[in-house]
Amino acid sequence: MIYLDNSATSLIKPKEVYSAMLDCMKNYAANPGRSGHRLSAKAAEKIFECRENLCGMFGADDPNRFIFTQNATESLNLAIRGFLKNGGHVVLTQMEHNSVIRPVFTLEKDGITHTVAEADVFGRVSPESIKNAIKPDTKMIAATHVSNVCGTVNDIEEIGKIAKEHNIAFLVDAAQSAGVLPIDIKKQNITFLSLTGHKALLGPQGTGALYVGDDSLVPLKTGGTGSYSKLPYQPDDLPDKYESGTLNTVGICGLNEGLKFIKKVGTENIFEHEMHLTSHLLENLSVMRGISVQGYMSAAHRSGVVSITSDKKTPSEISHILNTEYDIAVRSGYHCAPFAHKALGTFDTGSVRISLGAFNTKNDIDAFCSALYNITR
Amino acid sequence: MIYLDNSATSLIKPKEVYSAMLDCMKNYAANPGRSGHRLSAKAAEKIFECRENLCGMFGADDPNRFIFTQNATESLNLAIRGFLKNGGHVVLTQMEHNSVIRPVFTLEKDGITHTVAEADVFGRVSPESIKNAIKPDTKMIAATHVSNVCGTVNDIEEIGKIAKEHNIAFLVDAAQSAGVLPIDIKKQNITFLSLTGHKALLGPQGTGALYVGDDSLVPLKTGGTGSYSKLPYQPDDLPDKYESGTLNTVGICGLNEGLKFIKKVGTENIFEHEMHLTSHLLENLSVMRGISVQGYMSAAHRSGVVSITSDKKTPSEISHILNTEYDIAVRSGYHCAPFAHKALGTFDTGSVRISLGAFNTKNDIDAFCSALYNITR
Repeated sequence: MIYLDNSATSLIKPKEVYSAMLDCMKNYAANPGRSGHRLSAKAAEKIFECRENLCGMFGADDPNRFIFTQNATESLNLAIRGFLKNGGHVVLTQMEHNSVIRPVFTLEKDGITHTVAEADVFGRVSPESIKNAIKPDTKMIAATHVSNVCGTVNDIEEIGKIAKEHNIAFLVDAAQSAGVLPIDIKKQNITFLSLTGHKALLGPQGTGALYVGDDSLVPLKTGGTGSYSKLPYQPDDLPDKYESGTLNTVGICGLNEGLKFIKKVGTENIFEHEMHLTSHLLENLSVMRGISVQGYMSAAHRSGVVSITSDKKTPSEISHILNTEYDIAVRSGYHCAPFAHKALGTFDTGSVRISLGAFNTKNDIDAFCSALYNITR
Repeated sequence: MIYLDNSATSLIKPKEVYSAMLDCMKNYAANPGRSGHRLSAKAAEKIFECRENLCGMFGADDPNRFIFTQNATESLNLAIRGFLKNGGHVVLTQMEHNSVIRPVFTLEKDGITHTVAEADVFGRVSPESIKNAIKPDTKMIAATHVSNVCGTVNDIEEIGKIAKEHNIAFLVDAAQSAGVLPIDIKKQNITFLSLTGHKALLGPQGTGALYVGDDSLVPLKTGGTGSYSKLPYQPDDLPDKYESGTLNTVGICGLNEGLKFIKKVGTENIFEHEMHLTSHLLENLSVMRGISVQGYMSAAHRSGVVSITSDKKTPSEISHILNTEYDIAVRSGYHCAPFAHKALGTFDTGSVRISLGAFNTKNDIDAFCSALYNITR
């Protein structure tokens, strides 16, 4: 199979991810931080190593501020629900995923209000449009770093400055950027950084994290932490305050290897590789009749997430033929980001999304382009 | 290592668990239910197969009522917070884990009240003590099936009858019983069944589930479900209503193999094996000077979770020596169940917990007993 669905999940991982997971399962998948025996201690050490690697990759100071979650959706719910617990207004962008939109909209009934800062036709949300959406009771700006529909990159450094100037918490959804684009929590004034492990961070599903830069955040869950066992209330220590129940040790061991691989290869080299392929893809698409690309047509201001429509076939027809006749995996339809589709003009049609990853090759792009040409000519 | 810490995590899994997880990671860990290509479809099929196996094992009718979570703590938070969203009173037992106690106590500030039904010195909570704790505004009874401290079994069928008679939701924490004791959602009138995957269900960490028998339950998280993508609110369909974000496909594939193994061997045979070993352990302990066993001294009314104290050494001294000098893994101290320790008289000391699993042998018990004898004589 030619796999071009990396924005959903990166299918191919570094081989160290597989071997570390198997080693963990067979040799030390005991309960981290609960019992005191050597396997429990080893599991806890591995988890802390992963926290340290997250801390190093994203420019934070304290590994214990990285809270492990099941996925980015849990990270975003924790940040949004936990921070807006006592009311207020939130600014979100038109390019947000439903994992931001739905928690924010769900909170309407608790009196939390919101303003959606509009994007342009390329999917770019200007820092000004965010600034203009701020109200006196705005408590949080939530912005996706990279659109999961069209790959357009938001200027989170500029948005972070605005958040800082207005003393507003800044939540960045880095589901599509972490592992590909540079992220610096301090430099970019990020209060909450939401991460998923199974996309460009090259770990397995079942892993995510939230960087918590403001301790007023209220936990989404409470329960056993292995600490202050006699206390019927949640302890305040980090990371325990936000991490109840047994963590996904085997998943975190896999994620740790993904992070180590990225550090070894270099985020900038992975990005360069993906953008080289993206340019090649965009160049091919630009000469195909009846194919429209959503977002930017050049490699600037974008990542390797590319959405297209055709005037010959619907997105689902295209993806179906790609799957059944060419064994090429893409995603078609609506990409859980309804307002983004409105900005891009694909709210009625959806799109075919081709999303590249660290292990794609030029041959993959050529095979896809050739198949698309045959399907839509 | 001799591993006797199965109540924390079952370390040894059926070999099919390891191979299924590796196969999933290497061959089809695509995003289930999001894209339409064959690997995404295969991932979704495996997840549904696991739902069906849970449904079959616990006597439910609808696989889609099993909601996958990260762990039992998430399952319990979803049930407790989601069901008591609009106020009310909850009855919990003195034997509950902090994963029940802390969510219930956290809700105090939202006006949710509670009564703790007392246990006797064996850790047994009589159905009468639960009945007596019911108030006119009681909305939920939360009861652990098996104590994680001393292995005492609660009569959930009798408690379920009381819940039904009073039209109260019944939440069962089956973290220590699922996979060992028979559980029948219909027969036992269970409204919410909380499960963890990584203990006696023999799956990996990062997996848990909640059976949801009442749709008035409010989700803990909202976000992308791959369904009704254009809707900025959470859809009502099951399981999507409660399952936002990418599931832990690889973990669920592992859990699925754990369930298949249990089905093949038979829960009753696993229980018989564990109780055979438990009887042997209890017999040995009963003749050791200065050793006290918490909970029942006979194999009736209990599982293979055994807590002890010694009048010669503290629990942490014992577990430390077992770990360093004998390479035997147990857990010592407080087992995240403060009120249970009060019932058992170990609130000031904690205990050494020996917890058996499907793969333990008589040799493991003999080695432990011999070591304990040497340490405490």
